[in-house]
Amino acid sequence: MDPRIREHAEIIVDHSTDIEAGDNVIVYLPGNAEDLGVALHELIGQKGANPVFLTYSERADRAFLRNSEAFETPDHELALYENADATIIARSGPNPSEKADVDPETTAAYTRAHDPVKKARLDTTWCVTQHPNPGDAQLAGMSTEAYEAFVYDAVSLDWEAQRKFQSTLVDVLDDASEVRIRAGEETDVTMSIEGNTAANDYGEANLPGGEVFTAPVRNSVEGEVYFDLPLYRQGREVQDARVTFEAGKVVEFSAGRNEDVLAGVFDTDEHARYLGELGIGMNDAIDRFTYNMLFDEKMGETVHMAVGSAYPQCVGEGNAVNNSAEHVDMILDMSEDSVIEVDGEVVQKNGEFRFE
Amino acid sequence: MDPRIREHAEIIVDHSTDIEAGDNVIVYLPGNAEDLGVALHELIGQKGANPVFLTYSERADRAFLRNSEAFETPDHELALYENADATIIARSGPNPSEKADVDPETTAAYTRAHDPVKKARLDTTWCVTQHPNPGDAQLAGMSTEAYEAFVYDAVSLDWEAQRKFQSTLVDVLDDASEVRIRAGEETDVTMSIEGNTAANDYGEANLPGGEVFTAPVRNSVEGEVYFDLPLYRQGREVQDARVTFEAGKVVEFSAGRNEDVLAGVFDTDEHARYLGELGIGMNDAIDRFTYNMLFDEKMGETVHMAVGSAYPQCVGEGNAVNNSAEHVDMILDMSEDSVIEVDGEVVQKNGEFRFE
Repeated sequence: MDPRIREHAEIIVDHSTDIEAGDNVIVYLPGNAEDLGVALHELIGQKGANPVFLTYSERADRAFLRNSEAFETPDHELALYENADATIIARSGPNPSEKADVDPETTAAYTRAHDPVKKARLDTTWCVTQHPNPGDAQLAGMSTEAYEAFVYDAVSLDWEAQRKFQSTLVDVLDDASEVRIRAGEETDVTMSIEGNTAANDYGEANLPGGEVFTAPVRNSVEGEVYFDLPLYRQGREVQDARVTFEAGKVVEFSAGRNEDVLAGVFDTDEHARYLGELGIGMNDAIDRFTYNMLFDEKMGETVHMAVGSAYPQCVGEGNAVNNSAEHVDMILDMSEDSVIEVDGEVVQKNGEFRFE
Repeated sequence: MDPRIREHAEIIVDHSTDIEAGDNVIVYLPGNAEDLGVALHELIGQKGANPVFLTYSERADRAFLRNSEAFETPDHELALYENADATIIARSGPNPSEKADVDPETTAAYTRAHDPVKKARLDTTWCVTQHPNPGDAQLAGMSTEAYEAFVYDAVSLDWEAQRKFQSTLVDVLDDASEVRIRAGEETDVTMSIEGNTAANDYGEANLPGGEVFTAPVRNSVEGEVYFDLPLYRQGREVQDARVTFEAGKVVEFSAGRNEDVLAGVFDTDEHARYLGELGIGMNDAIDRFTYNMLFDEKMGETVHMAVGSAYPQCVGEGNAVNNSAEHVDMILDMSEDSVIEVDGEVVQKNGEFRFE
């Protein structure tokens, strides 16, 4: 077995989920991640914890979804998660387009029926990570070997050092009232974060981690953003999205390709046109876009903004939590001709933080 | 996908487990049985039932067992089964010797801790079947293609016709007091089945099915048996086992190879030297020994006897249920120079039933 798989498993078990004796653990991997499953079971055994090994198959999911007419919440799956302490999920698909011919309404109905299961899973200590495979390498336009190196570099940061590095930005944001982001000719947007708090993602629930994120005050976002990195959604790539905010709301938008996908997002519900998240990517091992949001949003020298639901833990008392069925991240490159200003002071310029 | 996989899935869902709308189903397959998983999910979707997809990996099991010092009953796995209606399990290992270097005492401790989970699983409608693979073909000494044909032939009997055929023998045994089995020079054994009942296995909990089985009255077994087919246990093959019963108990035994394995079985506990089961194989599609008890015990023109625990549903009121931690099946060929007599009448001669 590739020794990096055991190192990855150690980070998951020791750092991300901190598995302890007696913990009821769910290991949830696709079939092609068996090696990672073996490494995780070694460590879970050593910890004295109790694993249940769930699998997912995009092919089986597709078969189920295309043949079902209605969905209900599965009591047995709910009971499993309600009695679990930790959930380890690795994504790894031989074909990321496997569900391209599943009706999005079917997927939405399934997601609604499964919402109690998802909530119970989020009540455990959970970690979502990636097991490298040829399909995701293909999506990234990389060789399998180069993609493996990319994944293992990204998940193997010195997470304690990363936590400290990021905590400086968290402190800056927690004391601040206003963030302004300028990039190139087309991006200049200002938002209030007054009363809201920033979160430090250093490889726990997401592995890789490597971002600091907060929630804008809902009606405060003003200005224009050119998201120069693509948005990949349900197998379709939105390119060159341009968005104008007034009083927090998207009032104008365009895209160079697949603009209708963007329109579908914004029209989902009342608050899908408001920002739920401002995130700042700080994982410098992630140096390229791979069409995988688990990585892309953590990429160093980028900023992302998500329309739709906000993370409640970031929203201070008295501020509204933006609720929406959507949470769609869009990313812009900050490596050149770009500035993040907090309360009028430059915090990052051309991708470099002032505290670096 | 091989069309036989979809046919196999239909038999499992329609015949073996009779999945209905709203059923909470557990699909429990190893990674190499993904095609069967896809076919099952299609059908479970069509039925309007709710699948949870569990997996097992012998490699992960081995890793967990070799690294654990103690085991406890996992509450989350128990809750999963307690809330399930049906469990579909397919065996399929790339290497049936994968756990050859796991300490049997570790496996036993794990099995004890998992006993409540097993009981909850047996309280669902369950089916154990086989997905063909090169490892099991190798164990059987067959090409993968020939093994596939063997498996799909064995699971695809006309199960309603088989049920009827076998029910004739069930009726004979239910009315009877004594069974005598003679084969060759060395086998002549008599046992009472007075008050006990026979069960008809036609492909429900076991797929393939194809046997009729009952429980001998515990102290009634007298005589000698030469089990001319091998017994494969924890990776070791016991050949040419010869056993003498007096007042139900094994009083003498020998084996041509690995006799110590047999000794270990008999010395497990007080009732491991008594027969718990008499079974008569009636699946004529199973025409060869493949070192897989799911198939071997159903083989046409064979009889098997299991020392150890009896099936309570076969034991009539007033008769003792033989309880033991063991249930070890041993098989003898009845195709030549052999007779099954029930209350003095020949029911089968040289493998042919009088009602065929």
